[in-house]
Amino acid sequence: MSYSGGFNALERMFNPNSIAVIGASENPFKMGYYCLKSLLNFKGKVYPVNPNHSVVQGLKAYPSILDVPGEVDLAVIVTPAEQVLGVVEECAEKGVKGVVVITAGFREVGGNGLRLQEEMVRVARRSGMRILGPNTFGFVNAHAGVNATFTDVLGELKAGNIAVVTQSGGVCHLFCYDAITQGLGVSLAVGLGNRCDIDFPEMIRYLARDEKTKVIALHIEGLDDPRGFLEAAKETVKVKPIVVYKVGRAKVDREAISHTGSMAGDYRLYDALFKQAGIISVGSVTELFDASKALSITKPPKGRKVALVSVQAGPAIIISDVCKSNGLELPEFTEETRKKIESLLPPMTIRSNPVDLAFAYNPKVGLEAVRLAIQDSNVDMLIMFQLYHPAVPSIAKMLVEVVRESGKPAIVALHAPRNFVKSEVEALEMGGIPVYPTPERAAKAAVYLAKYKQVLDRINKTA
Amino acid sequence: MSYSGGFNALERMFNPNSIAVIGASENPFKMGYYCLKSLLNFKGKVYPVNPNHSVVQGLKAYPSILDVPGEVDLAVIVTPAEQVLGVVEECAEKGVKGVVVITAGFREVGGNGLRLQEEMVRVARRSGMRILGPNTFGFVNAHAGVNATFTDVLGELKAGNIAVVTQSGGVCHLFCYDAITQGLGVSLAVGLGNRCDIDFPEMIRYLARDEKTKVIALHIEGLDDPRGFLEAAKETVKVKPIVVYKVGRAKVDREAISHTGSMAGDYRLYDALFKQAGIISVGSVTELFDASKALSITKPPKGRKVALVSVQAGPAIIISDVCKSNGLELPEFTEETRKKIESLLPPMTIRSNPVDLAFAYNPKVGLEAVRLAIQDSNVDMLIMFQLYHPAVPSIAKMLVEVVRESGKPAIVALHAPRNFVKSEVEALEMGGIPVYPTPERAAKAAVYLAKYKQVLDRINKTA
Repeated sequence: MSYSGGFNALERMFNPNSIAVIGASENPFKMGYYCLKSLLNFKGKVYPVNPNHSVVQGLKAYPSILDVPGEVDLAVIVTPAEQVLGVVEECAEKGVKGVVVITAGFREVGGNGLRLQEEMVRVARRSGMRILGPNTFGFVNAHAGVNATFTDVLGELKAGNIAVVTQSGGVCHLFCYDAITQGLGVSLAVGLGNRCDIDFPEMIRYLARDEKTKVIALHIEGLDDPRGFLEAAKETVKVKPIVVYKVGRAKVDREAISHTGSMAGDYRLYDALFKQAGIISVGSVTELFDASKALSITKPPKGRKVALVSVQAGPAIIISDVCKSNGLELPEFTEETRKKIESLLPPMTIRSNPVDLAFAYNPKVGLEAVRLAIQDSNVDMLIMFQLYHPAVPSIAKMLVEVVRESGKPAIVALHAPRNFVKSEVEALEMGGIPVYPTPERAAKAAVYLAKYKQVLDRINKTA
Repeated sequence: MSYSGGFNALERMFNPNSIAVIGASENPFKMGYYCLKSLLNFKGKVYPVNPNHSVVQGLKAYPSILDVPGEVDLAVIVTPAEQVLGVVEECAEKGVKGVVVITAGFREVGGNGLRLQEEMVRVARRSGMRILGPNTFGFVNAHAGVNATFTDVLGELKAGNIAVVTQSGGVCHLFCYDAITQGLGVSLAVGLGNRCDIDFPEMIRYLARDEKTKVIALHIEGLDDPRGFLEAAKETVKVKPIVVYKVGRAKVDREAISHTGSMAGDYRLYDALFKQAGIISVGSVTELFDASKALSITKPPKGRKVALVSVQAGPAIIISDVCKSNGLELPEFTEETRKKIESLLPPMTIRSNPVDLAFAYNPKVGLEAVRLAIQDSNVDMLIMFQLYHPAVPSIAKMLVEVVRESGKPAIVALHAPRNFVKSEVEALEMGGIPVYPTPERAAKAAVYLAKYKQVLDRINKTA
């Protein structure tokens, strides 16, 4: 089955009208319980499949998928491994568009598991039915209200424009739990697991076309098809950014990684691949999240020149340091801006770039300094740092206005005990300004935001 | 005034019986308002000093420090810069043990500011009175209930065993706000500001003797006296760890840093200095916090060999990768442990090191696997990773017991949406197991914990 032939099935699978849960359970110690629970708020039809019960969690259950009366677009399979192949064959017979095989014990254990997985793939190729997994936690389509996973709390994910596709379900959970905590929206969250059918290259091409997705975030342990990946990525980054967290920097892991049948695990090869593809490569789950968030909420700057305005000097030095260590510049302001800022702020503040507001802080002066800094013709983007202090009122709404007027992107670092600035963070992010809790994370987000502009510039140069 | 001569004054200043706030105000737009507000819960005597009011925030106020009836151990000065020298002279006349000069506009602005600062130092040297600052936010002694800062919310800091001493007040706020949010205890939090009198070397020596302090966390922009720093640090790390976040990795900042009169800002010089001193050098505010927390809550491992037990494979690979990239090892278990773990867990799980509990998870089996792993004779410490899932019950209390029995340190990474695992985190940390939200941060904390053991080993070898 070629990629293009299976694309419609993929589309339907991620946007189903009806879903069966095969192995649905009443027992809260089984994953089949959570797989059904996760779908109880789904607006389409949900069919529990269980040969031993006629009702599961209040829904009419069916002995087999073949007994389900209507069409089934998506089936979530959570039966024991030895039953999965039979169930997959029944799904194909039923005309199911796609299955999520949550059950593990296939390629990753070798032997009979590997053979069973190969059989599943043959069923998929023959029928046109798509398979996510096996050995996956499933996927969430927040726009369609589909939580096809064994983690019901992922139903709290807000609909947004980041698609996160991970090899490991655990890493997808890390990303999505942060997204829930921060209220960051996601379009699709997908765990690829063993990738017997649906793999990175196809997901990238699918997401390139997906109008709901603005940013693609990937977690990769190893690639089976680096060339396919490169081709898909190269095309895609022309229209939307791809951010990748590739695990496996320690050289001692090389054997372990190639053992899974993936591309040899030398990190330098991946680095070269990502560079060639125009991918933004990051160094941790946190950076994957932070970079995706920046690209999701705002746009890349025209260039690498940052204006930095801070209410505290020490964190500003840190931001400046991280920016400069990663290829960004803090240019001098034009003479006009410099003069205006000097007349605005008292001599004891730092009035060059970074601008230190420490001893001249009131909202009006602070905002005017931000306005002058971001509008300076030497400047492509703004970073602002502020610590919570009871004496400092929120300027979120006015800051959004000043940034919007400038037409340039801005990033804010806002640090507070507990949730003291929650509403301020929300106002800023609703207004297109991503917010980070530490100077380092804000600076790194700016670095990655600027990197996508470099990717686009290179594409336009070679085009 | 030699270091030893001023030590008693320093002790009294940080543990005062009576405090005056000079420049105390009723106006919530002034720092003098917050400086007094921060001290309203102080159990000793508090004297507002303000020539224009007889009562400030409900307390009897005095026109000058000289009018205060009793002894004053500590004075917080927040008057305009041009008045500070006079006030400092009056404090010395009054016999105040130490002053916190919050006001800025001294060495950092040059010219007259520099001269005023030099005058202050002369007063201190002559009188034996100690000066913190100028240009500082002050200090918090959580054990003594003293919040001598302009940030009242810092009064929420729990008493604990980490002393954090920063050059920048902003960075101290970053650290302390996280400590408040996470409920991590602090012994002293000190902003050194311009360091006209109290500087890093003396603070290190003071904290080396301070029984309430177990870990010293430092933020440094530049050192005026690298030799004094080295000597103080070398002695101190024999009895307690020092963790340093030195800002200024970007080479372009070199001129800026040396311009403040500090040691030339070549990061390699600092790296060499820290190595020689046996200091644990970290790369961000977050790492400063995380490493200090690990050293505060648990003890260093005997060696570099980590057992890793995870409920999810993907994050385990990340932890393994970060550990191995930073000098830690994941050894094979002894044959005995291996056999026991193999009989405990089903064949489809990873039963070597890391141990992957994914498909065999129940609290009893999980705990037994942890017990086997941490007690293995090839192993010096444990890292455990777990994601929140509604099907997985808390094992915090039992885990604390298993770790305690082993006599080895353990670090846990626990990730959840919002505050879903708050009580579990608290139970673990109360039980001596530091908890981090991401695999990378947990692994880095383990790396820094092991580094202190290497420092001690080197000291013992040369001794």
